[in-house]
Amino acid sequence: MSEIQWSERWSRRGKLAAERATAPRTPNPKMISFVFGDPDADSLPLNEMAEAAESLAEHKRVDALGYQDPIRGDELNEALAIKLKRDQGIEVKPEQILVTSGGSGGLSLLSDMLLDPGDTILIDAPAWMGATGMFRLSGAEMVGVPLDDEGIDPAKVAETYDRLVDEGRTPKFLYTIPTFQNPAGVELTAERRQALAKVADERNLLIVEDDAYNDLRFRGEKKPTLFSLVRPGNAFFFGTLSKTIAAGLRLGYMVGPADIVATMARGAVDSLRNSYSAALADWFLRSGKLEEHIGELREIYSQKSAHMLAALEREMPEGTKWTRPNGGFFLWLTLPGSLTAPGILADARDAGVDFIPGPAFYGDGGGQQSLRLSYSAVSLDEIDEGIKRLASVIRNAQSTR
Amino acid sequence: MSEIQWSERWSRRGKLAAERATAPRTPNPKMISFVFGDPDADSLPLNEMAEAAESLAEHKRVDALGYQDPIRGDELNEALAIKLKRDQGIEVKPEQILVTSGGSGGLSLLSDMLLDPGDTILIDAPAWMGATGMFRLSGAEMVGVPLDDEGIDPAKVAETYDRLVDEGRTPKFLYTIPTFQNPAGVELTAERRQALAKVADERNLLIVEDDAYNDLRFRGEKKPTLFSLVRPGNAFFFGTLSKTIAAGLRLGYMVGPADIVATMARGAVDSLRNSYSAALADWFLRSGKLEEHIGELREIYSQKSAHMLAALEREMPEGTKWTRPNGGFFLWLTLPGSLTAPGILADARDAGVDFIPGPAFYGDGGGQQSLRLSYSAVSLDEIDEGIKRLASVIRNAQSTR
Repeated sequence: MSEIQWSERWSRRGKLAAERATAPRTPNPKMISFVFGDPDADSLPLNEMAEAAESLAEHKRVDALGYQDPIRGDELNEALAIKLKRDQGIEVKPEQILVTSGGSGGLSLLSDMLLDPGDTILIDAPAWMGATGMFRLSGAEMVGVPLDDEGIDPAKVAETYDRLVDEGRTPKFLYTIPTFQNPAGVELTAERRQALAKVADERNLLIVEDDAYNDLRFRGEKKPTLFSLVRPGNAFFFGTLSKTIAAGLRLGYMVGPADIVATMARGAVDSLRNSYSAALADWFLRSGKLEEHIGELREIYSQKSAHMLAALEREMPEGTKWTRPNGGFFLWLTLPGSLTAPGILADARDAGVDFIPGPAFYGDGGGQQSLRLSYSAVSLDEIDEGIKRLASVIRNAQSTR
Repeated sequence: MSEIQWSERWSRRGKLAAERATAPRTPNPKMISFVFGDPDADSLPLNEMAEAAESLAEHKRVDALGYQDPIRGDELNEALAIKLKRDQGIEVKPEQILVTSGGSGGLSLLSDMLLDPGDTILIDAPAWMGATGMFRLSGAEMVGVPLDDEGIDPAKVAETYDRLVDEGRTPKFLYTIPTFQNPAGVELTAERRQALAKVADERNLLIVEDDAYNDLRFRGEKKPTLFSLVRPGNAFFFGTLSKTIAAGLRLGYMVGPADIVATMARGAVDSLRNSYSAALADWFLRSGKLEEHIGELREIYSQKSAHMLAALEREMPEGTKWTRPNGGFFLWLTLPGSLTAPGILADARDAGVDFIPGPAFYGDGGGQQSLRLSYSAVSLDEIDEGIKRLASVIRNAQSTR
């Protein structure tokens, strides 16, 4: 009954959301799911959070429970500035950092603040569906620039940008995950980073750099961030503590010019930050426990990733391809012959294994032959069994075509 | 430099935010501030949160640190459903509740989901500036309906609504705080609640009921919520744990029809909830400590409110008027003669006392003679001294006119 009244009540955005379906997060215990990029559950620092909460109580940190501005010159912002300099070579002042409700809170804010319906943006192809979902709610048109094993191709970015300018559709920004890309699991090379920064600066193209996985490198050399390579003001950098402390704290951060960040804060949905989460995280960073914890996480994900690669080698029929991540949570598998991921999904679920088909990461129906596998949340045994099930589904599909 | 590039980058909403100024929250230690409706700092339950965190660690509640959907049938949603029934007589299922990033996160979501630029809404006059700031970012036109000592006048709501319909500007909803209104400190009478519900149902007018202060009643009888009086689907109810546990946890909730709430969740900026905050709050509710704590808070705010009323009686020159709140954090003062609140603000700040002038709560320049005084965050001594300073500023302004 309520829908009858409500159909007229939704805004443009409300109507889009009413049409939008999302995968339920309730796990089916019998299914081995390579769907979600959830952190390894056993490693979540529950004891450390309790220790942090105890420390806040001992020191009577009432500010940790009161209203707080999201931009502050002290505490978590300062700890993040120190971390950014140490780990990513980014030199910023604490007031250039806006703490948001997870990385998604920040991306959605940026999208609200920069995008009007009908605006055009450039994205990775494939691109993280969480981000594209938000951009879609803003009414933006997304144009994908293909990735290969070395990440996004700067020449193709330039070519696509210039073509769109000619068409009167100058892109507002490029949204990209250069390091351990979600979903592809690839990493933009150092050379391409330099070239992409040049492409952006020549065109005054804003780069929105999502760096959710940088701390979780288990192989290869650290590369410079795009943020540090472009002219100041031509990039926004997004980080998160969801992968390294806990997603449940909802702590992400965006970094940019101080005046622009201040304006972003004024446009925020909830313009106040979760100060208790922030204070817990601050304790975790300053006590040195975050670094220690990241070391453990690298080992865990390195082992899971290696385990999945070994299982794929062992089980997959010839012609199947996959990326070999140097970090992060995901790899991207391409099916042999003319098999499509949407075509095998129902059989896979019947066989007790789940994944996200490629087209979910494309706005235009691309990615039919590919799928994303996440190894972060599953156990080593589940990886073995799940990949075995998936390989069997693929072989059956090959034989019945 | 960055502004030069950035001026072209903002969206409609971004441009509005770039123009919008907000009061900094950094307190000046010499100033007695009646500005912010912050909870009493000494009563914030730091020890209880540490106890809750310890309990989560003991019970290995890894779900409390993982990704979670904001709508859930268990835990905090269930505890809130029990509380809503017990304290407000509202019967809802847990899945009718969407946990948001503070009450403001929910209001802003509703505003995004229902309002397109140019849409019209009805609001209290005066109205809470936090809400009107969000509605303004959505591009809505706000039409105020005046409050008196008994709250908003249902006949005036009907009249204003009908006039706007005639003008082709049918209001999308009425946003109102019926109980211990912010900023006016008044309470909608039981009779007017019945009448307003009738007005809304006759017109299919959606009521957005903000009930942030209901738990903090220290005088008078509980009144039924508008949500419980209108037809299902004709009201959205907003609650918050910011005033009764801690603002720093950023936990608010919205209540409506299950299908509509599910759609709201799909349009959310950060579609995941702060599960750690939620788990801490859940422990606080289920352990019975919230009720105990609310009892203490009622005494604290009752005392502060009585103290401010006594100081006003003692200090204020004849002709000054103020409301007498039955609960909540605020009262509304109207200056004598032709004095205006913006006119005395600079002198007040020079004298070391601060408040929010009335026009900040009106979209149309109204409220010149009035101002909001918040007694929640200040001590009894500060109330005495601050009201003395304010009275002296008013007297000086009278004598120099």
